[in-house]
Amino acid sequence: MSRPLRVAHVGPVAMAMPPAGSGSVELMTSLLTEGLVRRGVDVTLFATANTTTTARLHALFPEGYVENPDMWPWELYEMLNLAAAVERAREFDVIHYQAAYYPMSLAFARLSPTPIVQTLHHSPSPAETRLWASYPEAPFVAISAEQRRLLANVNVVATVLHGIDTDAFSFRASPDDYLLFLGRFTAGKGPVEAIEVARRAGLRLILAAPANEYYEREVRPLVDGSTITYAGEVDHAGKVALLGGARALVYPVQAGEPFGLVLAEAMACGTPVAALDRGAVREVVDDGVTGGVYPDLEALVAGLPAFFALDREEVLRRAIARFGIDRMVDEYIAVYERVAGRRSSVR
Amino acid sequence: MSRPLRVAHVGPVAMAMPPAGSGSVELMTSLLTEGLVRRGVDVTLFATANTTTTARLHALFPEGYVENPDMWPWELYEMLNLAAAVERAREFDVIHYQAAYYPMSLAFARLSPTPIVQTLHHSPSPAETRLWASYPEAPFVAISAEQRRLLANVNVVATVLHGIDTDAFSFRASPDDYLLFLGRFTAGKGPVEAIEVARRAGLRLILAAPANEYYEREVRPLVDGSTITYAGEVDHAGKVALLGGARALVYPVQAGEPFGLVLAEAMACGTPVAALDRGAVREVVDDGVTGGVYPDLEALVAGLPAFFALDREEVLRRAIARFGIDRMVDEYIAVYERVAGRRSSVR
Repeated sequence: MSRPLRVAHVGPVAMAMPPAGSGSVELMTSLLTEGLVRRGVDVTLFATANTTTTARLHALFPEGYVENPDMWPWELYEMLNLAAAVERAREFDVIHYQAAYYPMSLAFARLSPTPIVQTLHHSPSPAETRLWASYPEAPFVAISAEQRRLLANVNVVATVLHGIDTDAFSFRASPDDYLLFLGRFTAGKGPVEAIEVARRAGLRLILAAPANEYYEREVRPLVDGSTITYAGEVDHAGKVALLGGARALVYPVQAGEPFGLVLAEAMACGTPVAALDRGAVREVVDDGVTGGVYPDLEALVAGLPAFFALDREEVLRRAIARFGIDRMVDEYIAVYERVAGRRSSVR
Repeated sequence: MSRPLRVAHVGPVAMAMPPAGSGSVELMTSLLTEGLVRRGVDVTLFATANTTTTARLHALFPEGYVENPDMWPWELYEMLNLAAAVERAREFDVIHYQAAYYPMSLAFARLSPTPIVQTLHHSPSPAETRLWASYPEAPFVAISAEQRRLLANVNVVATVLHGIDTDAFSFRASPDDYLLFLGRFTAGKGPVEAIEVARRAGLRLILAAPANEYYEREVRPLVDGSTITYAGEVDHAGKVALLGGARALVYPVQAGEPFGLVLAEAMACGTPVAALDRGAVREVVDDGVTGGVYPDLEALVAGLPAFFALDREEVLRRAIARFGIDRMVDEYIAVYERVAGRRSSVR
């Protein structure tokens, strides 16, 4: 019997994992870590000491820089956390770095005796990818075909869509009578467009996200407390309740995003998604099955009535099959074995 | 005969060196590099390709991130430049990193087979030094006793005051009849206090620095075009002319700074300095010889007449003896030999 795969998993050191509130990179890091451990992978998680995990925990810092503003500049803390894994490189078959902001791992690509694979979490600029392309020693994992398309000439070894903990969401067969906007209040996420959709469709809309300057300036004047209501920032239980009760999640995203975790989360409650065709939306939403993907707001509003006929149980089944944690764990194990030059043995 | 000391000198990758305008870390890096080469040290300078040097140049990037805003985030460019030196570590006796912003070199302290010594260029916070103190493998050079005082428990191997190219400044035996403020327009540098000094002393003041928001808001309303005039941003020749013509450089610094290059530059023109006693000022200015160091503005104004009796030739002599480039080069060579575990042999 071959020995278990030994993985150093380097997460952000922003906060405890799993995150209490928002923190999509932290959530994905935690879910992947726990999934790998369940599969028998020998995982050492490099994270803050207040993190909860079944993996071995290597903690340089008691807490994260989002929790402790004295930890500045945050980049140095991220670097030292990654360096701690590279210092122990010979104990691992592969180092997996979650590049929450940018792949600082490139600085170690030619120094580490163990390959460092990095998952990228944002949409890079052409100047960024030109730089990264000069480090063929650095294997990247893209989180969508949309993101991979931007990574011209970069050494991309796989595309692995995120998984979510579908058990942490509750299926609702019969929703209430509202649309939902759930996400940060930025122009790119399209909260103002979500309000326009609700008004033109003559439906209620609930907005849920932390208030910020954009909210105060652009969104709040449009909230009337009856048709358009603001639910504030919600915790996980509140999120599940709001998602499950929605007729549809409205996702009129303006900027192309490399993924969209909230789309999969809505689907895990049986709630379909009404989205604009931007970024990775088509990779997450199956048009006509788990929601609708439209070229513009006009088409989205026209398409809304069809949502009420979508089979919410089928939406849930697709969510589990496509975004269940097992699929993501399987695909990352395959990446590790390939990057480490091992034959598949763990599964 | 022993072989020459082999030094990797890692400068910022913000712009071409030596800098055309301001850039004190770039200027110091360039002066030290050229001084080391003149002394027979085998220096490889890690910098941008548009840098001018007599050392070997290892350039990853054609230009710097101040020159090309596409080079973002700048931290990654700094890291990769430093990593390039660490990748070649076995070719050097010592790696010298100019920590223009923060010592990202700590991330390589336990990975590099060659010691990395870093010069720190800012006044660190207690939280910063607590972190750095956990890396005893990382030798630091302080740029003043004032800065060293802040580096409690950090492995500080030497204090080396900056040097300047005294030949690049011109001595003026008889100045004109004005005071000079030369530096960035920030509350910490005290331009408003410099204006108060001039008014209370009944003397003209010339301000020279790039205009910015602070200038527009706080300084410009006080500029009257006769007693208080604004000369804009000056190049090196303009700086030398303004410094040489001044009765005194007024330096009513409010925030404690770890050094003050402009003080040494004034002295290299024979111009004394009227300064507040903050930060490293007492280490640069010899009270009663190259200027006056006062506890507050009141005392500074009262002390100004004494300046007109100071011997400008003596000011110049002190500048050359204390801040000539040779002293700095000597001291850094001693640091390198100590850190590399070599006996003194190069000088």
